[in-house]
Amino acid sequence: MQKLFLGIDLGATTVKTGCVSSEGKILSETKVSTEAHLGPNAVVQQIIKTVDSMFEQYGKDSFEAIGIGAPGIVNNGIVKAPPNISSWDEVNLQNEIHQITGIKVIVENDANCAALAEAKFGAGVHYKNFLFVIWGTGVGGGIILDRKIYHGPNGGAGEIGHTTIDFNGPECNCGNRGCIEAYIGQRYLSQRTKELLQKSNVQSKIIELIEGDFNKIEPHVISLAAEQGDTIAIEILSEAGTLLGYALSNVSNILDLETVIIGGGISAAPQFVYDAITTSLQSRVLKPHRPNIQVLRAKLGNSAGIIGAASLVI
Amino acid sequence: MQKLFLGIDLGATTVKTGCVSSEGKILSETKVSTEAHLGPNAVVQQIIKTVDSMFEQYGKDSFEAIGIGAPGIVNNGIVKAPPNISSWDEVNLQNEIHQITGIKVIVENDANCAALAEAKFGAGVHYKNFLFVIWGTGVGGGIILDRKIYHGPNGGAGEIGHTTIDFNGPECNCGNRGCIEAYIGQRYLSQRTKELLQKSNVQSKIIELIEGDFNKIEPHVISLAAEQGDTIAIEILSEAGTLLGYALSNVSNILDLETVIIGGGISAAPQFVYDAITTSLQSRVLKPHRPNIQVLRAKLGNSAGIIGAASLVI
Repeated sequence: MQKLFLGIDLGATTVKTGCVSSEGKILSETKVSTEAHLGPNAVVQQIIKTVDSMFEQYGKDSFEAIGIGAPGIVNNGIVKAPPNISSWDEVNLQNEIHQITGIKVIVENDANCAALAEAKFGAGVHYKNFLFVIWGTGVGGGIILDRKIYHGPNGGAGEIGHTTIDFNGPECNCGNRGCIEAYIGQRYLSQRTKELLQKSNVQSKIIELIEGDFNKIEPHVISLAAEQGDTIAIEILSEAGTLLGYALSNVSNILDLETVIIGGGISAAPQFVYDAITTSLQSRVLKPHRPNIQVLRAKLGNSAGIIGAASLVI
Repeated sequence: MQKLFLGIDLGATTVKTGCVSSEGKILSETKVSTEAHLGPNAVVQQIIKTVDSMFEQYGKDSFEAIGIGAPGIVNNGIVKAPPNISSWDEVNLQNEIHQITGIKVIVENDANCAALAEAKFGAGVHYKNFLFVIWGTGVGGGIILDRKIYHGPNGGAGEIGHTTIDFNGPECNCGNRGCIEAYIGQRYLSQRTKELLQKSNVQSKIIELIEGDFNKIEPHVISLAAEQGDTIAIEILSEAGTLLGYALSNVSNILDLETVIIGGGISAAPQFVYDAITTSLQSRVLKPHRPNIQVLRAKLGNSAGIIGAASLVI
């Protein structure tokens, strides 16, 4: 009988659960609302709903183990204060799900799961060590050392989004100044695009795509316009790539890492953005690293959550 | 018979070799000129001179193993392009010294050795994970994870001195901009002090201590003046501590480290400098880290080189 694994991607709005093969293929998936506003017990019940539906479909005995990717800091199976889930201080999700299902459970931070998914089944299979960056609403990350997640003494490692590239820079929602997230997170990119459009006399493809409604400016719109040669869109994304390169050079100089894999919503950006990141990173790292620097696009896309969670136990 | 270890601190000007006990005590030490201008073969001969003298003193059979701390990047016993040693591209120092002595040899970067010395016998004995910073002529570092050196895939980890705190900041001798070393390395501190003294109308203790010769401004002079309440000296060192805190917050957010140990020449600075570092670091790290941040003074001082090298094999 084929060994099967459950990968559970716990998000603030949706719980996505997949039945995953030992080769990292999703055989089927299901999802339910997280019901985050009802607090931890309700969230656990929602997770169990998806688990039960998979047990019914494949038979409980088919499953070796359950992996769960959760937002926030995760340490020894305990999920601490995940953003956007009500009344959740510290919950030992690993124990709770294990006690209900009777099956082995491992819980890890979701960004770390996505990094591990790329290490085992994605763009990172040939690299023992790399930094994985999630570039989307915010900027997150996961560090893979010797093919394993480096999750830090307290489970808080990889917060590249909140490293500063200018100690006098713009205020970030974390309270720090000049965090890379405060330059290239989705909200900043949209705001910066709006500003450039408002003061520019150049016709922009972006205006067409958003039908004149500045609230509709999103990274995929900027990407689309850039692909069509729009100069403002190209300027915004090149600048963002250059700034990200500065933040990455700090990581490289601290950890001696030369490979970076970029995932998350904005990672679908055109190749010139990757070129901008690479050029900036190469110009800023210490000389011995320069010839070996590479910045790769993640391969697993939207499946990274489920596959990443399953990767914890495969 | 007591087990003995040789710790060799290879510097650009001096080779210092100590006979070290398994408790990390230096029983005796010897030193010779490195003869760096004569190239690698001469340097190896100088190292062997110190080893032979220790063998004569204690008997070769007393020694278990030899540890060597070397400047530059060290990977698998190979020392790459150490600064200020002529015609040294890549030398497998581990093999060379092993073949001559017949004893087990381990070679590691000198900053990493000093970090390990603090972990085993100094300020870090109670901490499994910490960042060690050498603050002197430049700013270097070593990362201790789970009581071991994290030396990185290529032996280049811990280069905190060349992480940027402002991508538009002053040029650093590494080619990057805004590196913390370009703000608080010895040369910068001396230069900044000179500037403040020249434009200030306040009487400064520093002027007395340097007998009016601005070339005599060195960190220990600034420290001494600060201890005597000199406002300019206090301003310089507080500012430097605050800036160092910014760089440390990046490391903490990436690696989830909450303990920092500061060694090197400038670490002898008064307590208020440590307070400035701590305040700045605490204000900049992500909230979960804040209550646990601590910045400690290294304990081993000038002995860190020899003890650190010996720590590799103890």
